[in-house]
Amino acid sequence: MSTVKLWTDEEVANDSRLKAVFDDIRVTRKSDFINNFWRALANQPALLERTWSSIKEVMFEPGALDPLTKELIYIAVSATNGCSYCVHSHTAAARAKGLTDEQYAELTAIIGMANETNALATALQIPVDPQFMVE
Amino acid sequence: MSTVKLWTDEEVANDSRLKAVFDDIRVTRKSDFINNFWRALANQPALLERTWSSIKEVMFEPGALDPLTKELIYIAVSATNGCSYCVHSHTAAARAKGLTDEQYAELTAIIGMANETNALATALQIPVDPQFMVE
Amino acid sequence: MSTVKLWTDEEVANDSRLKAVFDDIRVTRKSDFINNFWRALANQPALLERTWSSIKEVMFEPGALDPLTKELIYIAVSATNGCSYCVHSHTAAARAKGLTDEQYAELTAIIGMANETNALATALQIPVDPQFMVE
Amino acid sequence: MSTVKLWTDEEVANDSRLKAVFDDIRVTRKSDFINNFWRALANQPALLERTWSSIKEVMFEPGALDPLTKELIYIAVSATNGCSYCVHSHTAAARAKGLTDEQYAELTAIIGMANETNALATALQIPVDPQFMVE
Amino acid sequence: MSTVKLWTDEEVANDSRLKAVFDDIRVTRKSDFINNFWRALANQPALLERTWSSIKEVMFEPGALDPLTKELIYIAVSATNGCSYCVHSHTAAARAKGLTDEQYAELTAIIGMANETNALATALQIPVDPQFMVE
Amino acid sequence: MSTVKLWTDEEVANDSRLKAVFDDIRVTRKSDFINNFWRALANQPALLERTWSSIKEVMFEPGALDPLTKELIYIAVSATNGCSYCVHSHTAAARAKGLTDEQYAELTAIIGMANETNALATALQIPVDPQFMVE
Repeated sequence: MSTVKLWTDEEVANDSRLKAVFDDIRVTRKSDFINNFWRALANQPALLERTWSSIKEVMFEPGALDPLTKELIYIAVSATNGCSYCVHSHTAAARAKGLTDEQYAELTAIIGMANETNALATALQIPVDPQFMVE
Repeated sequence: MSTVKLWTDEEVANDSRLKAVFDDIRVTRKSDFINNFWRALANQPALLERTWSSIKEVMFEPGALDPLTKELIYIAVSATNGCSYCVHSHTAAARAKGLTDEQYAELTAIIGMANETNALATALQIPVDPQFMVE
Repeated sequence: MSTVKLWTDEEVANDSRLKAVFDDIRVTRKSDFINNFWRALANQPALLERTWSSIKEVMFEPGALDPLTKELIYIAVSATNGCSYCVHSHTAAARAKGLTDEQYAELTAIIGMANETNALATALQIPVDPQFMVE
Repeated sequence: MSTVKLWTDEEVANDSRLKAVFDDIRVTRKSDFINNFWRALANQPALLERTWSSIKEVMFEPGALDPLTKELIYIAVSATNGCSYCVHSHTAAARAKGLTDEQYAELTAIIGMANETNALATALQIPVDPQFMVE
Repeated sequence: MSTVKLWTDEEVANDSRLKAVFDDIRVTRKSDFINNFWRALANQPALLERTWSSIKEVMFEPGALDPLTKELIYIAVSATNGCSYCVHSHTAAARAKGLTDEQYAELTAIIGMANETNALATALQIPVDPQFMVE
Repeated sequence: MSTVKLWTDEEVANDSRLKAVFDDIRVTRKSDFINNFWRALANQPALLERTWSSIKEVMFEPGALDPLTKELIYIAVSATNGCSYCVHSHTAAARAKGLTDEQYAELTAIIGMANETNALATALQIPVDPQFMVE
C-alpha cells in the first residue's frame, strides 16, 4: 500500500546507520515495537535520522508540557490534516500514556468545535481584533 | 473586511435575543470585552446561540482537561487550518489563562513536527499498523 | 501584495489575446467590472484562456443546478480551503445573484457543521458503512 | 478500524440517554438505519446529543435552503477536507433526497473548479478587490 | 468504493465521445493502461473531456519545466491535500518518468519541511517581509 | 501582527546562541537579508537551531534535485496549505534562483490542476489502481 517498502528488523540489522536509529527508538520509548512510520523512513536514512532526532527532542525531552498533553496536540493536528495513519498512531500513543475516556471525549469535542469555528471565522472573514495583536 | 457587519454594543442592546448571549459571554468569561467573532455571528441569532452554547459547554465547563490544555488544542487546530483569526484569538486566550513562553515554544514545535510527520506519512502512504487498531 | 502584476485595462487593450478574454468576461457576466483574479491570470495567457473557458462552462452554462446554488457550493469550498480572496469574490457573486440573509445564515451554519463533523469522523476514524458503497 | 468501538442497537437499548438520541434520529430521518457516525459518537453521550441536536436543526429544519442543496454544500466541504467517510455518507444522503446524475456531474465539476481557482488565487496571492468588501 | 461506477473498456467502446478521450489518453501516454481516475470521470463526459484536455496541455505539452519536475510538483500538492489516490498515481507516474530513489528521498524531505515551516509561519502569524512584495 | 516579537539584529547580537544561527544563515544564503520567519523563531532558540539546521540540509546541500526545483516544490506545498507568508518568501527565493516567467506560469498551472484533480478524486472516492501499488 505504501509507496516505499517497509524495512523488516532483519534488513535493518544489516545496516548499522539504520540499526542505530531503531535501537535508540526502542530504548527511548522503552518498547520493542517499531511502527511502520519508521520502517518506511528507513528508505531514506538521512530523513530517518533527522526526523527521529527531532521527534525525540520535541516529544520525549522533559519540558513545560507533559507527555500526554503533547500527544493531544499531535492528535488535534493529525485529525485536522486528515492523516489517518497519524490519528491512529498518536491516539494509541496517548492511550499508552494514560489518556482516559473522559479526556478523549473532551479532546474530540474540542477538535470538532475548533474546526467548526475556524470555518465560521473564515467564511465570514472576520477581522482580527486589535486587542489580540502583540504590541 | 468581513462579509457581514460587526454588531456594536449599542445595536445588540436593542435586540433582547442577542443581548442575552452577549451578557452570558461577559459573565462566563468574566470580561467586558467581546471579540469580533461574536459580533459577526450576531447577524445569525440561531447560529450565535448554538455556537456560544457549544463553546461554553466544551471550553468552560469543568472536565477532564484543564482550560489551558483546551486552548493549546484549539491553537493546534487553528494553525493547521490556517485560520488567522482563530490563531490570534486563541493564542491571546491561552496567554490570558497562563501560557508561559516555554509552553508556547513547545506547543509551536509540536505543531510544526506534527505537520511535518503528517505530510511524510501521507506522501509515503504508510499503512496503519495492526497494533494501532481497536479490537 | 500579489506575486505577479495586475494588468490594467489599458495594458490588456494592447494585447489582442488577453483583450478577447476580458471582452468575453464582460459580455458573459453582463458587467464592466473585471476583478483582480483575471488581472493576475493575464500574466499567463494560456492559463487565463483555459480557466475562463472552464469557469464559463461550469458556472455560466444553463444546467441542472441554478446559478445561486453553484455559488453556494463555491463559497463552501473556498471557506474550507481558507481562500480569503475566493470567499470574498464568491460571496459577492452570490449576493449579486440574489442570496438572501436567511440563505446566507443557513449556508454559514452548514459550512460550520460540515467542518465539525468532518473533523469528528476523521478523529474517530469511523469506517464507511457498507450501505454507502456503490456496489 | 475506528479509534473507538461502534455501539450496536443492543448496547444502545440498555442506555436510556443514548436510546433517546437514536430513537429521535430514526424518527427524524424516517429510516431505521443508523450509520456508524452515530454509533461512534455514542461513546461520548454529551457530544452525541449536541451534535445530533445541531445536525437536526441545521439539516432537517425547514428553512431558506432546500434539503438537497444543503447536502450539496455538505459534500463540497467534505470533499475539500478529504473526509472519506463524510463524502460517502453525504453523497448517499443526497441521492436519497433525489440527486440526479446530471446534478451530481455539475456538483463535481464545481468542486473541482473551485479547488483549482482557490489554489491559483492563493499561489498568486491576489489582493481582494475593494468592490468585494462590505463597507 | 467509489461514489460512481468505473467504466470498463467494453462500455467505453460503445460510446464514441468517451472512446475518443480514452484513445487520446492511450496515444498521448504511449500506454494501453487507463487508470481508474479516467474510468470514474467517464460518467461525466464533459468533465472527462475538459479535464483530460487540461491535463494534456499542462502535463504533456513541452514547456519550460521537464516532465519529471511536473510530477514532483503534482506529488507535493497531492501529499499536502492528503489525496491518497493522487499520491499513488503521480508517484507511479514519476517513477515511470525516471524518478530515482535519491530524488524521491529529497522530494519527501522537502514536502515534510515545507509542511512544518508552513505550520510554524501560520502558528506565529509572521508578517510578510516588504522585500517579498512585487513592486 | 505576529503572535511573538520579531528580533532585530541589535537584539540578536546580544545573544550568542541566536547570533550563531543568524550568522550561518547569512553565510549560507550569501545575503545579509534575514527575513521575518527567522526573526520570529528567535524567540525559541532550540526551534530556531533545529529548523535552520534542517532547512540548510534539505534546501542548501547539493543533491539529486537542483535548488530551483526544490523551491518549486516548496511553493506548491505552501500554496496548497494557504500559507501566505510561505508563498511570498519561496516565490521570492525561486525568483532569486532564476525562476523565469514561463516556468512560473507552468508551475501555477500545475498547482491549479493538481488541486482540481485531487478534489475530483476525493469527491468520487476513486479506488487506487492495483498497478500503482508497490509490490
